[in-house]
Amino acid sequence: MKLNCDLGESFGAWTMGLDNEVMPHIDQANIACGFHAGDPLVMQNTLALAKKFQVSVGAHPSYPDLVGFGRRSMACSSEEIIALIHYQVAALDGMASAQGLSLDYVKPHGALYNDMMKEPKVFEAILTALTQYPRKLALMLQATADIGKYKDQANKFGLVIYSEAFADRCYDDEGRLLARSQSGAVLNKEAMLAQVKQLSEQGTVTTISGKVLKLSVDSLCVHGDNIAGVQAISEIKALLS
Amino acid sequence: MKLNCDLGESFGAWTMGLDNEVMPHIDQANIACGFHAGDPLVMQNTLALAKKFQVSVGAHPSYPDLVGFGRRSMACSSEEIIALIHYQVAALDGMASAQGLSLDYVKPHGALYNDMMKEPKVFEAILTALTQYPRKLALMLQATADIGKYKDQANKFGLVIYSEAFADRCYDDEGRLLARSQSGAVLNKEAMLAQVKQLSEQGTVTTISGKVLKLSVDSLCVHGDNIAGVQAISEIKALLS
Amino acid sequence: MKLNCDLGESFGAWTMGLDNEVMPHIDQANIACGFHAGDPLVMQNTLALAKKFQVSVGAHPSYPDLVGFGRRSMACSSEEIIALIHYQVAALDGMASAQGLSLDYVKPHGALYNDMMKEPKVFEAILTALTQYPRKLALMLQATADIGKYKDQANKFGLVIYSEAFADRCYDDEGRLLARSQSGAVLNKEAMLAQVKQLSEQGTVTTISGKVLKLSVDSLCVHGDNIAGVQAISEIKALLS
Amino acid sequence: MKLNCDLGESFGAWTMGLDNEVMPHIDQANIACGFHAGDPLVMQNTLALAKKFQVSVGAHPSYPDLVGFGRRSMACSSEEIIALIHYQVAALDGMASAQGLSLDYVKPHGALYNDMMKEPKVFEAILTALTQYPRKLALMLQATADIGKYKDQANKFGLVIYSEAFADRCYDDEGRLLARSQSGAVLNKEAMLAQVKQLSEQGTVTTISGKVLKLSVDSLCVHGDNIAGVQAISEIKALLS
Repeated sequence: MKLNCDLGESFGAWTMGLDNEVMPHIDQANIACGFHAGDPLVMQNTLALAKKFQVSVGAHPSYPDLVGFGRRSMACSSEEIIALIHYQVAALDGMASAQGLSLDYVKPHGALYNDMMKEPKVFEAILTALTQYPRKLALMLQATADIGKYKDQANKFGLVIYSEAFADRCYDDEGRLLARSQSGAVLNKEAMLAQVKQLSEQGTVTTISGKVLKLSVDSLCVHGDNIAGVQAISEIKALLS
Repeated sequence: MKLNCDLGESFGAWTMGLDNEVMPHIDQANIACGFHAGDPLVMQNTLALAKKFQVSVGAHPSYPDLVGFGRRSMACSSEEIIALIHYQVAALDGMASAQGLSLDYVKPHGALYNDMMKEPKVFEAILTALTQYPRKLALMLQATADIGKYKDQANKFGLVIYSEAFADRCYDDEGRLLARSQSGAVLNKEAMLAQVKQLSEQGTVTTISGKVLKLSVDSLCVHGDNIAGVQAISEIKALLS
Repeated sequence: MKLNCDLGESFGAWTMGLDNEVMPHIDQANIACGFHAGDPLVMQNTLALAKKFQVSVGAHPSYPDLVGFGRRSMACSSEEIIALIHYQVAALDGMASAQGLSLDYVKPHGALYNDMMKEPKVFEAILTALTQYPRKLALMLQATADIGKYKDQANKFGLVIYSEAFADRCYDDEGRLLARSQSGAVLNKEAMLAQVKQLSEQGTVTTISGKVLKLSVDSLCVHGDNIAGVQAISEIKALLS
Repeated sequence: MKLNCDLGESFGAWTMGLDNEVMPHIDQANIACGFHAGDPLVMQNTLALAKKFQVSVGAHPSYPDLVGFGRRSMACSSEEIIALIHYQVAALDGMASAQGLSLDYVKPHGALYNDMMKEPKVFEAILTALTQYPRKLALMLQATADIGKYKDQANKFGLVIYSEAFADRCYDDEGRLLARSQSGAVLNKEAMLAQVKQLSEQGTVTTISGKVLKLSVDSLCVHGDNIAGVQAISEIKALLS
């Protein structure tokens, strides 16, 4: 099971995330592409950092909403979604090539990620975008109980799926994340490490109702926003290896 | 001598330029990349139009200044210029590949173009950006009396230069364009066609002072903002063939 | 019955709308405030034009979505809606005062307008924003069959409502506009003038099903995007006076 | 001598500055207006914080350059500068009024501030903007040896000047700040406190060459980007009172 993290989320004079501290511990860097975070210089520096630590790079495209950090759902047409994914993925892909790196996958960000999981039209637009893209890129999405239906559809498009679980979030019986507003939604460190251990050794999570749910997981999403997060990442890594 | 034109300068709900009317007449389309004009959908549609008429495509990157249409000089560092060129060129390059097209060259836009011609540091930043770029792209710049020095420097970077002249603008004795504020700076149609004829047959222009100046020109920049411009383009094309 | 029109929708180098031709015919100008259209210079010029023709000015605030022209619904919180309305209204209000004009009303734009009519939470956020605003401004919204409920709520907030009808759009039996995708949604000129006449003389519209529906209308929204639109406006004006 | 600080420089999901810690110590808050930092919600919250601590509020308008944080000079026309100042000042002014606050002054930000001090055309555009503005606002600018010429011109426009010095920067013999690139440009805390003491008691600074220069100073600009900065502010305040 790999570790992935959203990185390159600084913008201009604003810094976000402890990228230098996180990069040594992870396997896959989801790099912002300028629509919710990440200007060209930030992208360049984040790619250089990924190269230094031999971390695989993925594009992290978003709805065009800088002030909302891509977290607000926007009613975009399929045509718009395809074009904005092509633009952002291509920008990062070319910048990666300029440093001798090869983009490996795409993980939609924020509201676009949530809409992809909920709205079949959005998921299909994203699959279409990746199918039309000149290079073969995997799509990272959420490991849910019904991930089979996402994988089946991706197969029809000839695309590979990377499924990810969230280390520090509690699951419901459908394998969806409990809304942050609900009590128990975010695990403390002890519970998080227990969940990672269970996922890694048994391929299951224990849901909020106590049910043991099988989840097929390729990668674990971790967060490096602060020092405690970085510390947790290093403990997760130690546990997994 | 080829014809090039700035296209894909619409943005969102705003339309600029008669791209459908211009594209059939030209050889090279300089396509905006989102920083002064051109959103992802506009870029996609412009590329499709270029493909339909088998027009060669070039990237037309700009300073990040949408409201100023890239026409205002901005004090960007070399590092910033390199990154913003990589980002914009890569975005268009990948979108072109997605349609089976191959990007051929880069022509900086507006104030970035003017700064490239005037400021050696800006020119060098642009050359550096193109040298680092994973694919070989030519650089389009202005045909001036001293174009040799630009070509020499480009050669050191291993880059090819496309030199362009302006059909409808009067030249001074140094082979620079007369500022639009000066009388006689913009030629009427008759004078423009005469200048094109002279350039094409003798490789010279007659400057504002009456001097005959040799200009080495690969391509002629034309404008398709309105119906009169499109009409002028078709007359230039007829004259050249 | 007054005439209102969305104006000041140019941005930077892009022109939209025949503002110079429309302004002499209308009573109320809904002026874009920079979030979907209208940069500071455009706003200044549009205010000067309104002043010249003694047209009443209203703010036309939008979700922050320049590339989508404010037409895509965005999941903004009430707090965000209040702040973005204050910002846009205040910017136009101060610029109007600088020219000796007094802002009269607010008409939300595009998706924000539609969400206001459909989502009670959005409507309440807008009412809250206007109540907190230091000057008394009216709120323009759509004249529907159930406009009473909007007016009642506005009254509780101490706010005045201006109701508007659409000259060229066909209504359904609830007094909502037929979706543009449906056949018969947009009236031709003859039908439009008949609808305006009926609204003006009898205070009713004939819906798509043939039902005669009472609509209380303070203002008629007209469009000046092209020459035919301007011609229609002048005919509506002649008909009304 | 008052203390002023640039605040409200967060944007969307990005936080900058320790505003909560700084506000209790200062007299004047220069609040970003959305063009280089500060979205509507951030502006609203910063105004509320200023109100809580009864801090005077000033607008901190900028060139339109979010990714460059307003630090890059942009070749804007006088007309553009006037419009962008009106827009930003009016937006903050109206939002301040909505909270019962009254905007007191304007301090241009970053490159616009530097250009104002260096370029007479930019200074005149700013004076024109403030003269046309419906309410009387002071203009904050840098206390230099030749501040008399700025004050004389402001007087002609009927405007009040607030002059500011920089606590932690070394001055040259013309009363300009030493460029940050030069050695000795930024004072350590001891030297800074000595400079503040000298300014406060004798109205002079000792320049890099050792010359004692008279500076007429209304306010001292301090920085609250980090904990050390906040600590320095509280020591400056103790020293001054």
